[in-house]
Amino acid sequence: MDIMFWALIGAVIALVFAAVAASGVLKKSEGSEKIKKIAGAIRRGANAYLKRQYKTVAIFFVIVTIVLAILAATGFMTFFVPIAFIVGGVFSALAGFIGMKIATAANSRTVTGATKSLNSALRVSFSSGAVMGMTVVGLGLLYLTIWYFILNAYFAGDTAQIASNMLMFGMGASCMALFARVGGGIFTKAADVGADLVGKVEAGIPEDDPRNPATIADNVGDNVGDVAGMGADLYESYVGSIISAGALAVAAGLGGGGLALPMVLAALGIVASVIGSFFVKTKENASQKNLLSALHKGVYIAAAIVAVAGYFLVTGILGPDHVGVYVAILSGLVAGIIIGYYTEYVTSDHFKPTKDLAESTVTGPATTIISGIALGMKSTAVPVIVVVASVLISYFASGGTLGSGSFEVGLYGVAISAVGMLSTLGITLATDAYGPVADNAGGLAEMSGQDPVVRERTDALDSLGNTTAATGKGFAIGSAALTALALIAAFADQCQIDMSALSLLDPTVLMGLLIGAMLPFLFSSMTMSAVGKAAMKIVVEVRRQFREIKGIMTGEGEPDYESCVDICTKGALHLMLAPAILGFVAPIIVGLILGANGVVGMLGGATATGFVLAVMMSNSGGAWDNAKKYIEGGAHGGKGSEAHKAAVVGDTVGDPFKDTSGPSLNILIKLMSMVAVVFAAVIVQYGILQ
Amino acid sequence: MDIMFWALIGAVIALVFAAVAASGVLKKSEGSEKIKKIAGAIRRGANAYLKRQYKTVAIFFVIVTIVLAILAATGFMTFFVPIAFIVGGVFSALAGFIGMKIATAANSRTVTGATKSLNSALRVSFSSGAVMGMTVVGLGLLYLTIWYFILNAYFAGDTAQIASNMLMFGMGASCMALFARVGGGIFTKAADVGADLVGKVEAGIPEDDPRNPATIADNVGDNVGDVAGMGADLYESYVGSIISAGALAVAAGLGGGGLALPMVLAALGIVASVIGSFFVKTKENASQKNLLSALHKGVYIAAAIVAVAGYFLVTGILGPDHVGVYVAILSGLVAGIIIGYYTEYVTSDHFKPTKDLAESTVTGPATTIISGIALGMKSTAVPVIVVVASVLISYFASGGTLGSGSFEVGLYGVAISAVGMLSTLGITLATDAYGPVADNAGGLAEMSGQDPVVRERTDALDSLGNTTAATGKGFAIGSAALTALALIAAFADQCQIDMSALSLLDPTVLMGLLIGAMLPFLFSSMTMSAVGKAAMKIVVEVRRQFREIKGIMTGEGEPDYESCVDICTKGALHLMLAPAILGFVAPIIVGLILGANGVVGMLGGATATGFVLAVMMSNSGGAWDNAKKYIEGGAHGGKGSEAHKAAVVGDTVGDPFKDTSGPSLNILIKLMSMVAVVFAAVIVQYGILQ
Repeated sequence: MDIMFWALIGAVIALVFAAVAASGVLKKSEGSEKIKKIAGAIRRGANAYLKRQYKTVAIFFVIVTIVLAILAATGFMTFFVPIAFIVGGVFSALAGFIGMKIATAANSRTVTGATKSLNSALRVSFSSGAVMGMTVVGLGLLYLTIWYFILNAYFAGDTAQIASNMLMFGMGASCMALFARVGGGIFTKAADVGADLVGKVEAGIPEDDPRNPATIADNVGDNVGDVAGMGADLYESYVGSIISAGALAVAAGLGGGGLALPMVLAALGIVASVIGSFFVKTKENASQKNLLSALHKGVYIAAAIVAVAGYFLVTGILGPDHVGVYVAILSGLVAGIIIGYYTEYVTSDHFKPTKDLAESTVTGPATTIISGIALGMKSTAVPVIVVVASVLISYFASGGTLGSGSFEVGLYGVAISAVGMLSTLGITLATDAYGPVADNAGGLAEMSGQDPVVRERTDALDSLGNTTAATGKGFAIGSAALTALALIAAFADQCQIDMSALSLLDPTVLMGLLIGAMLPFLFSSMTMSAVGKAAMKIVVEVRRQFREIKGIMTGEGEPDYESCVDICTKGALHLMLAPAILGFVAPIIVGLILGANGVVGMLGGATATGFVLAVMMSNSGGAWDNAKKYIEGGAHGGKGSEAHKAAVVGDTVGDPFKDTSGPSLNILIKLMSMVAVVFAAVIVQYGILQ
Repeated sequence: MDIMFWALIGAVIALVFAAVAASGVLKKSEGSEKIKKIAGAIRRGANAYLKRQYKTVAIFFVIVTIVLAILAATGFMTFFVPIAFIVGGVFSALAGFIGMKIATAANSRTVTGATKSLNSALRVSFSSGAVMGMTVVGLGLLYLTIWYFILNAYFAGDTAQIASNMLMFGMGASCMALFARVGGGIFTKAADVGADLVGKVEAGIPEDDPRNPATIADNVGDNVGDVAGMGADLYESYVGSIISAGALAVAAGLGGGGLALPMVLAALGIVASVIGSFFVKTKENASQKNLLSALHKGVYIAAAIVAVAGYFLVTGILGPDHVGVYVAILSGLVAGIIIGYYTEYVTSDHFKPTKDLAESTVTGPATTIISGIALGMKSTAVPVIVVVASVLISYFASGGTLGSGSFEVGLYGVAISAVGMLSTLGITLATDAYGPVADNAGGLAEMSGQDPVVRERTDALDSLGNTTAATGKGFAIGSAALTALALIAAFADQCQIDMSALSLLDPTVLMGLLIGAMLPFLFSSMTMSAVGKAAMKIVVEVRRQFREIKGIMTGEGEPDYESCVDICTKGALHLMLAPAILGFVAPIIVGLILGANGVVGMLGGATATGFVLAVMMSNSGGAWDNAKKYIEGGAHGGKGSEAHKAAVVGDTVGDPFKDTSGPSLNILIKLMSMVAVVFAAVIVQYGILQ
């Protein structure tokens, strides 16, 4: 039997597991009428947004598909590419959509679970996270294996053709992911910032208070941004790492085995994740610490299974000579875990960095901002060094050498380390994706006027979610950097550039490098401004409602939630276009002017700078968020103190940092590589300076 | 006669001009006893700081000199290198010291001039700026020409040896510049932020109020940071651009003429600057607009002279075949001017970006910060594209080709474009350096209780200074990026690496690239935290004085100004060490682990990211500053409004951005290249991965 059938079986297992988990969640009671009503409003808002988002993105997809079809007709690529572009986009959207569907079904059920116990709330929310995690990996691997079989049949087993075509099949997912992350990120942060600026700061009412007209929009935002956006994002990472490894396998002369390994490794990771997820359970009277160790246990068991079985997989598929590739996988797994732990250290209020940040709020908002930015900037050193160490180990362990002029073998190792890092995504994403569900459940508890103990339980889950999200971010960031490096090499290979002669001192490379380093800044500026603009509209609308609708503050009048959802929707859809299009056209324009070498320089500059900037923005934002929570817990005068006001300023600045601009950068750097790969033949033919 | 005598003559002209201008300034009356007393306190504080700074830096210089002497004894370099290291450091310090001396003498004379008319105030302050500008270029060119004659005699005209040794002679200036910029930057911003946080925000007294104990420290800071720091900084840029061009000239096979051209071009620029400075004069009743056009006139006349005479210089020295090198000079000159204009557009409150930023203060400090960061990030695109265009033009115009494997000829053009950009530094620095003098004069007017019309005149000068400073920054930033690119190539040449085979996809290059992109962030984090820490100490001290010294607020008790100066001095000297040492050791450590190729990657990553980050930080900071001034001029509720409070937060965050971290990055990227060049032989011999 073709070894690739194992990959297909893995994909099916993931999807079956997701379906079973989903039906388990849906069987639970949704709770009281009031909860149902509010959850229904959130669900409708999220559905309405996603539908309109998909419609907008569809126009973009149609235009690009037409361009690709013309390029296919003129011989620059096969007709598989436009088809795969659409299918890839649809699968990516589907991953986000299913995740969002289950999340908006699970939020009410988590509150209802929390009325009973912390454990039943955890089970519902973790199950919904598992649905999302398994859907992402299942759909991703299904997409790739089906294409593999089609291409294998069409090209009669010519691995070079298969790999080269499949490499182009990531662009659809990357485009969809960027739209989803940017659009969802603008929506969620505009609603959040807008709701806070008027509700908390001006009107002095607590978060998630039903009197705030933007509160439903805020909860819708959690679903379309943190859930649907993240689903599309990690779907893209997963697919990207596998196809870049496949392309480099062929470039390195490892043939069909090298091409198959990443996919079978992904299937192994799925099985490991399924096994790991059975270990996520606690006693009925579990403490928060028990909960955390339950989640960690599941992740570590899955990682351990991959670490052990990976050895047999590598030696079985590539032969015992390539046991070093196994070391590359291990280095990826370990690097992801270290970055996750470090992220937690930097951003959690249990440790010194965030405690120090909280202290700087005492001298006002200016020092809060300076300290937070300094913290984020400093925190880039460890992830960079860990990724560099991982590149070093995986490159040399898998047989790469220096100076010989053949970098492909070692770079395949680097790509495989990213696949290793993401192999257990099924379960790491589950522990990550349950956070927004718990967050939403907290909002529902507040809005439906539950007993304070219920809110305490959902808050405990939410806080736990922040910790596990740090681990998830470690994998997302590390894998993005490694995958982007692999994609640069794959692009050079696609252009048939002699990798050893691609000089950094070639002026087109230097020019590309400067432009590439600038693009993440320009992109982040666009996404941050977008949040600011959309939030301003929410501020104006909420102020208007407070002024015009009588009795809102006394609870006698009902706010018009829908109008805020509508404003966020329009704002997000309108403002996501420019940054997304920038990411798409930049490599093409640079390629047509500076040629293929210029594109390699640009991708190098964008990857290095984008990676560092993403870490900085995510960590500054995370630390500001937790410093604020730390003060709300009573430190430095607690809620209402001057320190708290300064901390709220930090948190508000941090919102677009950590939930819009930062995570979008991870996608941007890969999308640019993907676009470059697809347009490689055009760039080589028409680039001016080459 | 050796053509290099012309360069020597140019250096002497600059120094003579500086001496004449200095004696002209010193002849003016210093004014009333009260002005003298306060000016004396500022002068003593600045002197005391600089002396202690030089002592601290001397220890560092002694240690490094010993290391260099050992390396020279073991054959890794000539004994000229340690000598030049010390001499270079001393010359750089001297440039800053003389600039500071004349500035602290001119501030009182500017106030006294302002009691008469705007024009006499301008003449004093501009003359003191000219002393600084001409001292920097005179000392820089003197240092280089003397070394040229020594090396020419010693190596009997072997241009390869001369250029290779001279390339190493920039490290002393770069080290000194980094210490001066970082130390001075920490001093000035700690005093400024500390004085504002307690004086303006808590006690509600105006800026420069003599009741504020930190006010003398604030004025001392302007001198040690903005004057002495800037002098050392631009001295380093000037020397760095000339020696990197010289090294590439030899690598490109252009021989002695190519080596001489940058120095003779610098001499031409000096003569042009002298001529231009005679045109800076206005009628007695000049308006502010007249003043600006007077300053611009001087700069443009100098640039026009270089643009015309440069043609004959290039064709005379290199021959008519190399007329393209002349185009490179022009491209550098024009790029500097464009970046300057764009910087003014982005940061001046006469244009849309800063006006929009001012509007965002209405919704509070959080939106002020988000908008300001977004503005800075967006503003990186134009300078990057202008520098890229300048690289493109200068590379191809001067005869560089693609794919042939020989990049040196074109890269020499890139280096020469930086020399062209800086050739008129004598006058651009004069228009830049007079700003802090006017700023100080304003402080003196306030503290000595002058008639309001005097303060209005000094404010007009100060505001004009902000505009011309933008032009100065354009040259500093553009030349830093171009020089850094040239230095990377010079390093590769020094290591005898085949430039065409230095692959970006070499794993050591990729690892270096990631580390290099991270270093500017880590460095900025250190310098920003340093400002925060030192400012906190000032806050504590000022609060203590307000509490303990009776009658400060009524004007009956006198604050202890010295203690604040002392705290800033200790803080700056203590905290400048870590970031400066990071810049020095990073290339050595990376070189010893990743080898020479890894260093090239690191320098590429640091240059691209550092350049972009420096532009972002400078422009965000400049725009926040002017948005605050715009509001203080009456917009959005004026002084005391909520919008103004938010604008003050923005300005406070912007202070370390624009005056400490941002400008230091320009030096950092060049210092790292300089260190790499000096340690090239050690790295090639002992680097592990190569």
